Amino acid sequence: MTDLQTLGQQAKEAATELALLNTKEKNQLLENMACAIENNTEEILKANQKDLEQADENGIKEVMKDRLRLSEERIEAMAAGIRQVVQLNDPIGTIKHMWKNEEGLTIGQKQVPIGVIGIIYESRPNVTTDAASLCFKSGNAVILRGGKESFHSNQLLVSILQEALEESQFSSHAIQFIDDTTHETANEMMQLTDFLDVLIPRGGEGLIKHVKENAKVPVIETGTGNNHIYIDKDAQVNMATDIVANAKAQRPSVCNACETLLIHKEVAAFFLPAIEERLIELGIELRADEIASDYLPSATLATEEDWSTEFLDYILAIKVVDSAEEAISHINRYNTKHSEAIITDNYFTAQKFLNEVDAAAVYVNASTRFTDGFVFGFGAEIGISTQKLHARGPMGLEALTSIKYIIYGDGQTRA
Amino acid sequence: MTDLQTLGQQAKEAATELALLNTKEKNQLLENMACAIENNTEEILKANQKDLEQADENGIKEVMKDRLRLSEERIEAMAAGIRQVVQLNDPIGTIKHMWKNEEGLTIGQKQVPIGVIGIIYESRPNVTTDAASLCFKSGNAVILRGGKESFHSNQLLVSILQEALEESQFSSHAIQFIDDTTHETANEMMQLTDFLDVLIPRGGEGLIKHVKENAKVPVIETGTGNNHIYIDKDAQVNMATDIVANAKAQRPSVCNACETLLIHKEVAAFFLPAIEERLIELGIELRADEIASDYLPSATLATEEDWSTEFLDYILAIKVVDSAEEAISHINRYNTKHSEAIITDNYFTAQKFLNEVDAAAVYVNASTRFTDGFVFGFGAEIGISTQKLHARGPMGLEALTSIKYIIYGDGQTRA
Repeated sequence: MTDLQTLGQQAKEAATELALLNTKEKNQLLENMACAIENNTEEILKANQKDLEQADENGIKEVMKDRLRLSEERIEAMAAGIRQVVQLNDPIGTIKHMWKNEEGLTIGQKQVPIGVIGIIYESRPNVTTDAASLCFKSGNAVILRGGKESFHSNQLLVSILQEALEESQFSSHAIQFIDDTTHETANEMMQLTDFLDVLIPRGGEGLIKHVKENAKVPVIETGTGNNHIYIDKDAQVNMATDIVANAKAQRPSVCNACETLLIHKEVAAFFLPAIEERLIELGIELRADEIASDYLPSATLATEEDWSTEFLDYILAIKVVDSAEEAISHINRYNTKHSEAIITDNYFTAQKFLNEVDAAAVYVNASTRFTDGFVFGFGAEIGISTQKLHARGPMGLEALTSIKYIIYGDGQTRA
Repeated sequence: MTDLQTLGQQAKEAATELALLNTKEKNQLLENMACAIENNTEEILKANQKDLEQADENGIKEVMKDRLRLSEERIEAMAAGIRQVVQLNDPIGTIKHMWKNEEGLTIGQKQVPIGVIGIIYESRPNVTTDAASLCFKSGNAVILRGGKESFHSNQLLVSILQEALEESQFSSHAIQFIDDTTHETANEMMQLTDFLDVLIPRGGEGLIKHVKENAKVPVIETGTGNNHIYIDKDAQVNMATDIVANAKAQRPSVCNACETLLIHKEVAAFFLPAIEERLIELGIELRADEIASDYLPSATLATEEDWSTEFLDYILAIKVVDSAEEAISHINRYNTKHSEAIITDNYFTAQKFLNEVDAAAVYVNASTRFTDGFVFGFGAEIGISTQKLHARGPMGLEALTSIKYIIYGDGQTRA
């Protein structure tokens, strides 16, 4: 049984040291980690082989095994990922505002690390190096708890990162690993309020829900995207078809894919056959409400459940609406506050949609697939927050910081 | 038994409407609320009288009764408080950044309300109008749950605010009141994840701890301040004495008062007698460690517990330290991350203290008493956050907002 109290205490102490490193020092340590990953490619492949054998024994599906599988190229990509983090601007130490108040105090709002960040994640081993390097660059210690499927890969990856820190005489406790994949330990981690400042779950809906319901540590909810595209009556059929095809089919398994198409009744008869033709080519199964079904020979009838399902698959639900208002109200009822898009030529309808739809990212005339820290220009992504506190939408390094007020006085006392 | 599900559902619906009001509309409604408070002064005094009678029956201390007691002046101050909120800049709708990404999407980070805010608070009835007006101005619906001591005052105040909204044809559900002060209802409120976006407890350590431990709704921890002043060896005795006296004695019952004085051994013999003289004049009881006691005839010996106690009283703990390092390490061990100050003439020691002390506000040569949203220039304060997520330090209207990415495209799909 892993002693989480000790892990947490060590992480907290390492976080104090890490917060005081300058950018050059952090970058050098990250570069050392990248080299260490490259230099241990063979060992990593061996550890990964154990995970793959275990996956075979447990009858894991090929699609899952593919997410698990490492290769020389994928290991090289991990090292490259760490070096990308080296290139990112370091937000720590930035004074976001500084002003003089009435009493003559100079008050500055300084960006500081959060402290110790917990990450609970599933399957893909590259999350290990991604999360560790982003937390490190932003001056935070991290406690990683990966899934059992990639246990051997994760464990070795962390020990390589830790060794790289030790060789540079820096505390290896800045990157902690929970080498126990039982649910009991995960649940214990969720209660670690003395040592963990925040917990970020990365994985499927089940994991996120479980963490949200059981954690005492503050959680940043990430991930699930039951996203909609609304085709307005003033839309262009080609643009609408291209965007729907892209948002649904370019990569259906990701959280920014589209799950439900809403279309204005005035254009349904004209647009839906064109859209169906394209989607059938792409292998998409259609589930339509009664009115939409009239224009969609290939569709089956949608159930109530379909409106609230994140399919993450080659399936699209389709509903005809009477107005933009109805579309917005359907979206605000069923969405998971992730990414929503309208296709329209109408200025006022576009503005209305932007104002009234409640989601982390609201698009006019673009695919929902763009919700991504890299695409937004943050240079990184630790996850996509679907909550409103602390961070919303794609989270880059900025989301891993807090602030501290620093105040320069010359003897002021309060009257 | 109050039906919290219904209250929550109504608040959520009102929040949707409220988010769409412009600043002028919100200000007019707030002005109407201020007038309604003034016009109902007599009724408010009568309701307050019931609370005071109840306090007598329950043998409540005079100091608590004073916090509870309303007068014409205090009611006028409530109305004035609402009008101050009218004067504040409305953060909602501000685009904090807007940029064009590689694909030509114009991406803006727009400030939006959080949604529905829950406030659990104790005794003082003015928190009712303060919290309600700040939430309203920032476009958030609020669910208020005040303490039983001020129940009659709170209930009437909210019904006056609600009536003012109704008279202007706006949903009175934007300001909800839980008219049941049982612990069961408070606990149920803490689980209201479907309707509450955040819960802010305002009150003593016990309340905050209970909320933190029991809430499923995300909490912003506020309040407790076990604050220190460290007098460095390079400090000026007059400045040090003035600041310690101010931070301890100007208003000992508040969270930004000083609770422990740390002093460098090299100046203890010279400074402590001067400080003691001033503090005795101010009626402060001293609890000192062994070394400090040598210089402080009036002091009793401090216990381990004193280092971690927020006295909120005319008591100061005093400890002699060997170095700035020891002071910083004592502070980081015992503080509640609220407000910390150093008195020094030394540039490097000042910078070290600012960098290494972990607290919401860190001062050089100024009293800790300045940690306050008004003093910082925010024009308001809903509380002082002692956590690192979402908001840290004094929280004004900005802390009651979230963001939404709005993205303007012209047909982009992801490659």
